[in-house]
Amino acid sequence: MDGLAVLADSTYGATESRPKKLVIGKDAHPIDTGSPISRGTDAVVRIEDVHFLDKNEVEIEKAVYPRQNVRVIGEDLVAGEMILPENHRIRPYEMGALLAGGIWEVDVREKPKITIIPTGSEVVDPGSPLEEGNIIEFNSTILNGLAEEDGAQSYRSPILKDDLEILRSGLLHAVKESDVILIIAGSSAGRRDFTFKLLDDVGKILVHGVSIMPGKPTVLSLVQEKPVIGIPGYPVSAIIAYEQFVRPLVSALLGSGNSTRRQVKTVPAADVPSKLGIDEFLRVRLGRVGRPMIATPLPRGAGVLTSLTQADGIIRIPRLSEGLKEGEETAVELLRDEKEIENSIIMIGSHDLTLDLLATHLRRKYSGFSLSSSHVGSMGGLIAIQKGRAHLAGIHLFDPETKQYNLPYIKRILGGTKVNLIHLAFRQQGLLLARGNPKKIHALDDLTQDGIMFVNRQRGSGTRVLLDYLLQEHGIKPEAIRGYEREEFTHMAAAVAVLSQTADAGMGIYAAAKALDLSFVPLTRERYDLVIPDSFFHEEKIQALLEVLRSEDFIRSVQKLGGYDVSKIGETETLG
Amino acid sequence: MDGLAVLADSTYGATESRPKKLVIGKDAHPIDTGSPISRGTDAVVRIEDVHFLDKNEVEIEKAVYPRQNVRVIGEDLVAGEMILPENHRIRPYEMGALLAGGIWEVDVREKPKITIIPTGSEVVDPGSPLEEGNIIEFNSTILNGLAEEDGAQSYRSPILKDDLEILRSGLLHAVKESDVILIIAGSSAGRRDFTFKLLDDVGKILVHGVSIMPGKPTVLSLVQEKPVIGIPGYPVSAIIAYEQFVRPLVSALLGSGNSTRRQVKTVPAADVPSKLGIDEFLRVRLGRVGRPMIATPLPRGAGVLTSLTQADGIIRIPRLSEGLKEGEETAVELLRDEKEIENSIIMIGSHDLTLDLLATHLRRKYSGFSLSSSHVGSMGGLIAIQKGRAHLAGIHLFDPETKQYNLPYIKRILGGTKVNLIHLAFRQQGLLLARGNPKKIHALDDLTQDGIMFVNRQRGSGTRVLLDYLLQEHGIKPEAIRGYEREEFTHMAAAVAVLSQTADAGMGIYAAAKALDLSFVPLTRERYDLVIPDSFFHEEKIQALLEVLRSEDFIRSVQKLGGYDVSKIGETETLG
Repeated sequence: MDGLAVLADSTYGATESRPKKLVIGKDAHPIDTGSPISRGTDAVVRIEDVHFLDKNEVEIEKAVYPRQNVRVIGEDLVAGEMILPENHRIRPYEMGALLAGGIWEVDVREKPKITIIPTGSEVVDPGSPLEEGNIIEFNSTILNGLAEEDGAQSYRSPILKDDLEILRSGLLHAVKESDVILIIAGSSAGRRDFTFKLLDDVGKILVHGVSIMPGKPTVLSLVQEKPVIGIPGYPVSAIIAYEQFVRPLVSALLGSGNSTRRQVKTVPAADVPSKLGIDEFLRVRLGRVGRPMIATPLPRGAGVLTSLTQADGIIRIPRLSEGLKEGEETAVELLRDEKEIENSIIMIGSHDLTLDLLATHLRRKYSGFSLSSSHVGSMGGLIAIQKGRAHLAGIHLFDPETKQYNLPYIKRILGGTKVNLIHLAFRQQGLLLARGNPKKIHALDDLTQDGIMFVNRQRGSGTRVLLDYLLQEHGIKPEAIRGYEREEFTHMAAAVAVLSQTADAGMGIYAAAKALDLSFVPLTRERYDLVIPDSFFHEEKIQALLEVLRSEDFIRSVQKLGGYDVSKIGETETLG
Repeated sequence: MDGLAVLADSTYGATESRPKKLVIGKDAHPIDTGSPISRGTDAVVRIEDVHFLDKNEVEIEKAVYPRQNVRVIGEDLVAGEMILPENHRIRPYEMGALLAGGIWEVDVREKPKITIIPTGSEVVDPGSPLEEGNIIEFNSTILNGLAEEDGAQSYRSPILKDDLEILRSGLLHAVKESDVILIIAGSSAGRRDFTFKLLDDVGKILVHGVSIMPGKPTVLSLVQEKPVIGIPGYPVSAIIAYEQFVRPLVSALLGSGNSTRRQVKTVPAADVPSKLGIDEFLRVRLGRVGRPMIATPLPRGAGVLTSLTQADGIIRIPRLSEGLKEGEETAVELLRDEKEIENSIIMIGSHDLTLDLLATHLRRKYSGFSLSSSHVGSMGGLIAIQKGRAHLAGIHLFDPETKQYNLPYIKRILGGTKVNLIHLAFRQQGLLLARGNPKKIHALDDLTQDGIMFVNRQRGSGTRVLLDYLLQEHGIKPEAIRGYEREEFTHMAAAVAVLSQTADAGMGIYAAAKALDLSFVPLTRERYDLVIPDSFFHEEKIQALLEVLRSEDFIRSVQKLGGYDVSKIGETETLG
């Protein structure tokens, strides 16, 4: 306390009516909070309780007892007491406690050394010139980052070619230098066998293949008593193998206990059948839509790395389960803060390129909020709204009977539910064609010509509804179009089919053609809207999204995409 | 898929009974999983479905359709699609996705630059020679660590003396170089005023003092449009001020959204009255004792840094609340993983130095488990067990009637509850005396002599029970002992009182005297036991603790403390 350090004895008897006089420098010593009291004093009179008579003399009106307003030595730390137990992580708090205890040096665990060996004659470093058949090697970068995050000291070896001698000497060198070795064995059976043979030759195989998906071809082995883990080549498999087998090893070496991800309860937005006999790690988006936390499955392929960058959590479907049931509660491991998930807007519905832009503009303006989109088509979006699985749906559904967009479908599917319809844009729908239109396709009729291969969109998508209507109008039979049965789920996927020449034409929006520099024949202009149930409409995150949607910045960036008419963007109608 | 790349057309009609022959290198091209298929092929026959006739010819027994066993380009990423929105944290997953997308460079947010200025003529750097009145400056190390953890680039300035010109030029220099400036203003009103005057002079004060505890004297100001925060001098205040005011600023500058700590429900183990009108940040230990998560309050002083190193969570007691009620559910922010908390053993009871050793040996052997002790005396321990607030209690309670240790108290307080009594050690109790025993105290009777100041232990502690018994045996009246009313809560606190000469004698265990190199007069040998309710006894963590307790390593380290007889350590009795 700020005040005067005194001997309590000298203050006894002081009252307001009979104050005691003390001489500064003799009976009373000015003192600041936190400073040690002078020898021969045992209490502090607070500065508020002191009357200064002159420079040398004060009056006090209140007695103090011994040790009043004094913190005793050892309030925090006492010699001989333990400051930290073993295996305690030293955070900034602990640094302070150690310094406060006069300890300038402590023994700490050495960071485990991990060497990551990418292998394969066809893989090349990022930035190298690419030849046909080359694959960019990025798994080692991911694993390197994960190991560093986990507190290891990680070293990425140069890529080793598929040559037994090169691999052997590279591996043995790594075993000498490191505590743990990860060898990215490639995903091909041929190469896996190669790695397997090498590990079997120089060490001892413990496990060859585990019943997890992704991550099945993982190999666990010991070489000169050091753990060597054969990591599968598909990126998601590589990550799952790392997280299941390498992370616990790093924790054990650091003595830090197993750090597990937080688990919460969630409700899947769809049925997800899964193989018996295998533990599947399903990546999901999560969102709080009304009460329950809804999990929307992401693509399951082991090569789909964006299924992890976009994931909020991972559901482990156990080997004895045949999969997840829509609406049935299950546990999910979180990859993000729950708060972030609470602040995420779940959009399900038709794919439009402006949604990517909207997501990035939202995070630019409100870094706490995010927009997470799943593309299942316009009808899928409306059904998600009906089932309470999404905050908003993006739709463009033409009704041939009324020649109206969206409204008739909303009425049919959502009935009297009160919703808000926010207009996003009018956009050009047309034919996506190879660059320069080599097959000379100029109208819908041309799709029936010999040698023309079409790529369609999935049933329930607005684009499919529109195509079917246009075909009927033109009297064209679907059977006459080769490839009508081949369904892709997004504008971009249809455009890629055309770009990679597995189809000659697809139907999609102008912006998709422009993004891949394809030729485009416009067929019609359509209306794309967002549907938001009134029950979510007034949430802060939704209002933030709408503010961004109406902002000049966003509108300008949509115009740059091309093929959009934004003259009525943000106009709102309340229905139901 | 591993197999042969073929044109699907060439396989049509193949069946088991009528296989089709293909020529390798012409109709069929060997291919590994993950490799691009050759031009002119559109499907892959799996290696399992191929019969090799000779080196050049194969038979297939099953047709494939176009694109079967082929992953299409763009499964993961497509040109023109957004890989990451703005303000998305780049984790290792994202590094992979960027590289996979052919992106070697991205623009990222610059790390905010923070300068931390410790001030004060009396504070010195850790490791400097200490003179009387010096205080080691460690707040800047803590703040530096916190800022780096939060993603800032932090710079710790040299300590600036209390001189307005030095401070002014140091501050203005920092403002030029950094985005955020923290000035550790000291905790004294004098120095605070100094900092306040400086900030008011060169900038604009926004807030002077906030109604939080610890952290009240925080100052928020702007100097040349840069935020300058006056951080209080007590370490816990400094940390709370940082976490409440600086962390959100760093998040905003990083565009990373506000990272908030996870909140869970907890039940306080005791009433905690708190001042109205102020938000208190109460540090607590947490443990899962049976069903509820129990919060045991840690010392509340702003100088008690160990209250943070030992804390599992922080309960914010709002300004309109008069405090926490024992057993009444409240929210707590977690400082550790919930898993770690689940794995923590809650011991409440008497203080013994071997418990520190036990905690460290437990973490050495089982890094996933921890022992967290609160010292409230033996009776407090038994009551905590009775109320279901602890997994175990450490007790040493002498019963004058039966002349027995512990058993009579367990029966009285826990009734018929089934508990396990684990013997820890016999230990020496006696008088703690100044080094060399200058006051010549040799027996209890000497405590009544003139000029002798005693320090007592709190009611309910085993040592107090023992003292009162011994006084009665010797016919000594408590009133005859000066200082009998002064109560300390641990052996070490009593020893510190003697060491710092605020008392001439205390009662305590030999190990405490030895730790502080005090003189010691032994009075009696007592028995120290651990009480563990049978309902927790079979939990893995408890069994791990007992295994460690009985280990040679631990026993040897207890013997090194001195004053302990470990001949019966680990002996177990089941009662009730």
